[in-house]
Amino acid sequence: MFIDRLVQQIKEKKSNVVVGLDPRLELIPRFLQERHFQQQGKTLKAVEEILWDFGKEIIDQVWEIVPAVKPQIAFYEQYGIEGMSAYRRICRYAEQKGLSVIGDIKRGDIGTTSKAYSNGHIGSTLVEGERIEAFAVDAVTVNPYLGDDCLKEFMEDIQEANKGMFVLVKTSNPSSIQLQDLETGGKKIYEVVAEMVAAWSHQALGKCGYSSVGAVVGATYPEQGERLRTLMPKTYFLVPGYGAQGAKAEDIVRCFNEDGLGAIINSSRDIIFAYTKKDQHWREDQYGEAARTAALRMRDDINSHLLQLGKCYW
Amino acid sequence: MFIDRLVQQIKEKKSNVVVGLDPRLELIPRFLQERHFQQQGKTLKAVEEILWDFGKEIIDQVWEIVPAVKPQIAFYEQYGIEGMSAYRRICRYAEQKGLSVIGDIKRGDIGTTSKAYSNGHIGSTLVEGERIEAFAVDAVTVNPYLGDDCLKEFMEDIQEANKGMFVLVKTSNPSSIQLQDLETGGKKIYEVVAEMVAAWSHQALGKCGYSSVGAVVGATYPEQGERLRTLMPKTYFLVPGYGAQGAKAEDIVRCFNEDGLGAIINSSRDIIFAYTKKDQHWREDQYGEAARTAALRMRDDINSHLLQLGKCYW
Repeated sequence: MFIDRLVQQIKEKKSNVVVGLDPRLELIPRFLQERHFQQQGKTLKAVEEILWDFGKEIIDQVWEIVPAVKPQIAFYEQYGIEGMSAYRRICRYAEQKGLSVIGDIKRGDIGTTSKAYSNGHIGSTLVEGERIEAFAVDAVTVNPYLGDDCLKEFMEDIQEANKGMFVLVKTSNPSSIQLQDLETGGKKIYEVVAEMVAAWSHQALGKCGYSSVGAVVGATYPEQGERLRTLMPKTYFLVPGYGAQGAKAEDIVRCFNEDGLGAIINSSRDIIFAYTKKDQHWREDQYGEAARTAALRMRDDINSHLLQLGKCYW
Repeated sequence: MFIDRLVQQIKEKKSNVVVGLDPRLELIPRFLQERHFQQQGKTLKAVEEILWDFGKEIIDQVWEIVPAVKPQIAFYEQYGIEGMSAYRRICRYAEQKGLSVIGDIKRGDIGTTSKAYSNGHIGSTLVEGERIEAFAVDAVTVNPYLGDDCLKEFMEDIQEANKGMFVLVKTSNPSSIQLQDLETGGKKIYEVVAEMVAAWSHQALGKCGYSSVGAVVGATYPEQGERLRTLMPKTYFLVPGYGAQGAKAEDIVRCFNEDGLGAIINSSRDIIFAYTKKDQHWREDQYGEAARTAALRMRDDINSHLLQLGKCYW
């Protein structure tokens, strides 16, 4: 099961950190950009090679110290076919390095259309009797606005191809309150979604006791994280919001269970663009080392807060 | 403005029909599949050419009689890079034929990530000081679960690049009721979303009186269509559900305003795979003609029901 592999990696590496691969061209070191723009002109092909070089170096620097990476497909998709090609290459490379790869695609549609997304991203597509994998990541993020019709289409690949999904329950952005926090029958909308997710979670439990059906739970609202923890005890949380978005380790540890498991914490900009931090004096060509240092610091920050609460798995 | 071009096309063609381009490989005529599998083997490159040939023929047959097409990206995305390439080629060809192209992408994310989706699909992306268009369709569908943070990121391209979006308000699938129909403070969730959409609509009004910010409103629930019409008077509705999903013209006309405008009606399978209908005796190689016939019938069906209600613009 996806979740068993993920938890094993977490335990081996003693790290709950997910490195978000959200490449913003304007923040990628100039020397790396110039190398490819000089060779290939101002083309999307040059951009593909820049995104690949940049992502590969980040993965090379962090694969031994984090259990998973989360490429944000929007940042690749905006560069069209070439961007999608970079996304695929990055995902495959991360997989080769033994990392769990969570495609942050936030897809979701009605029945057969959701099935097409599942086929393309975590499953396979039938071509003349042969099954071909298109993007082939380990897990994806899924939007629940269309209800169970949408979610259930991912279950076949989760159960039979050993993949996973993280359903958006409560997102980390300010306007998430507009719909997600509305009250209905004494519950918040995100609590209703949490109950839906908990029900699907029970259908994909791994040997580790957790489920391959997870939830996205923003860490910018810590009391909600705690509440959602009780509503979805077996559900692994993918928690965005650490660092750049303002959530701190003391908030985030409330998303963990007493066993020190149950959550992985994503950070994107603060890791992959750590070299740009004015107070740290990195050179441009040290961007990989800077990312590794940031990922180690984040790991230690979270672990020390877990230790204080006695929520430690080692 | 996007909406002015769309309404002009609707009036010129006297058609409110949108042809949904949802290619399912198993339903594409065998002779067309075999041509490319024989040349290129069981490869995704062969699939790209099959999707392109099939989509091009459909467009050639319908471009004179419908205002818009709606390619469903999931059915291309499942074939990876090659599938996305077919999607791009189909979108560009439809645009060359003067059709409005609505990319059914149902994307949506937090701030800068939504902006990346907007850049990639309706706007452009900055590459070394030059703006490059990746997928470049006229309008996209957007998922509102993350709130206004998400929607607002599409507004710049809507207002400045003259593009459009259709926000999911009430979808046509059975389990849409799970979240969308929940009550909060005396309103349904989809009504709350409708109010959000109406507010954005006012910021992108065209000369025709309608807005380039539209709404997806499933036709499988006609009384809701009527209610949503009053909540969003200036908002164009993209209405799925006709035909295969069970909605009839008499239901659908309730989504129109008295001026005979305000809605475009999508049909996918019933048009593009009309040649498979047992009772119509089409040959496989007549799939394009069958699609044209189905699109004309659908146009006439809707128009005659509009005429009965006195909701006619000509």
